[in-house]
Amino acid sequence: MEQRWLRFDFAGKVGFGTVEGDQVHEHRGDMYGDSEATGRVFGPADLKLLTPSEPSKVIALWNNFHALGAKLSLPVPAEPLYLLKSPNSYLAHGEAVRKPRCDGKVVFEGELGIVIGKTATAVAEADALDHVFGYTCANDVTVADILQRDASFTQWVRAKGFDTFCPMGPVVATGLDPATLRVRTLLDGEMRQDYPISDMRFSVGELVSLISQDMTLNPGDVILCGTSLGVGSMKPGSLVEVEIAGIGKLSNRFG
Amino acid sequence: MEQRWLRFDFAGKVGFGTVEGDQVHEHRGDMYGDSEATGRVFGPADLKLLTPSEPSKVIALWNNFHALGAKLSLPVPAEPLYLLKSPNSYLAHGEAVRKPRCDGKVVFEGELGIVIGKTATAVAEADALDHVFGYTCANDVTVADILQRDASFTQWVRAKGFDTFCPMGPVVATGLDPATLRVRTLLDGEMRQDYPISDMRFSVGELVSLISQDMTLNPGDVILCGTSLGVGSMKPGSLVEVEIAGIGKLSNRFG
Repeated sequence: MEQRWLRFDFAGKVGFGTVEGDQVHEHRGDMYGDSEATGRVFGPADLKLLTPSEPSKVIALWNNFHALGAKLSLPVPAEPLYLLKSPNSYLAHGEAVRKPRCDGKVVFEGELGIVIGKTATAVAEADALDHVFGYTCANDVTVADILQRDASFTQWVRAKGFDTFCPMGPVVATGLDPATLRVRTLLDGEMRQDYPISDMRFSVGELVSLISQDMTLNPGDVILCGTSLGVGSMKPGSLVEVEIAGIGKLSNRFG
Repeated sequence: MEQRWLRFDFAGKVGFGTVEGDQVHEHRGDMYGDSEATGRVFGPADLKLLTPSEPSKVIALWNNFHALGAKLSLPVPAEPLYLLKSPNSYLAHGEAVRKPRCDGKVVFEGELGIVIGKTATAVAEADALDHVFGYTCANDVTVADILQRDASFTQWVRAKGFDTFCPMGPVVATGLDPATLRVRTLLDGEMRQDYPISDMRFSVGELVSLISQDMTLNPGDVILCGTSLGVGSMKPGSLVEVEIAGIGKLSNRFG
């Protein structure tokens, strides 16, 4: 069923619910399993949004789109290539991405996030989508200049792991066919990325199945699918919006 | 004060306490802050040990020892080079490291783990040790053959992130001077590593200070200091013990 779920803070307590029109219907129970409406309904201004799940880990793909790989002349990977985003980087919709203490160009990367719904260990590709709860928008923020500055060790985790460098949200949308989705990224209102998820080297089902051979995936864990053409740098004050029709628009200001 | 703390499961509930001789004195409160003895005392057989902290992240250093860097002719890093261990890899003392589904040589790396005690954001080196709670033993298990098999992307996170690949424990020891410690690793009772922490390229204070410039460190977070000479492969049935005088001996069987 197509639904949009979000997590929120109301009066100091964490809750979750579904978005219907302009209202949030609070639920109780397990967001990934059985839950029921409590009857409380909130307007958008009543709530402080939280990240759409509480991941034990966020896995981020590299070189997962044909178009970007072709442009950068990257080799075709034989298997998903990934890193971890650090938990201190997780950020809710509407919160500010902070400039790190180090120098260097800070870039946005608009991405689709897969939110896991059921514990997945070594699941077959045919069963992989049964372990997905839904999809969210994400910005895989990166200090580009750090990545390659040590020739002996590419600093993926560090360049992408600064505090506030992983905005996700505003919701998790269920019931979508990921192959039909497009990721659009706007920098100060101007379209900078607009690419189809169908261009992924490894599909959602392949990613969940293959990564679950290595690492058990838990409900709430997020796989960021990698980005495609149009990555660019943010200046202090920039507004970055990652929009995926069917999910919504993730907005975060930089600095 | 020199104390040895551990976390445990007793009758399905998580607790913590201090080790005194052969007994565990249960405490209540905040292990990293104010706590007091409850008066309950357990024998070692009463309890199931847990990882010595509940980290939001475990950061693992690469190329942090002069002796190993010299042997492998690695360049001298200008800054700490690190990755993240995946949460599904965290493992308690006494639990089994499981063979991954992929093929490839699986190696042990005995290491010192720094356990953070106070939230650290951009702390000065002079203040860094005030943010350390204590020290533990760790085994940074790695599928060596995966690391370099894709020429375009070194798979640090994946090779070190398989389920059960981060044994830590058995305790966190406080009040130690890390510069005096030695890490010894035994494979089936035979000494394979025996190196001094004083050989680190970046000291404990430098690591905490420098990494906290990038990422906020939280109580319970662990920094694995990297390994030195003597890394080797484990065979199914191998027993690996990482021993640091003043902390104790972390024992885990492979497969």
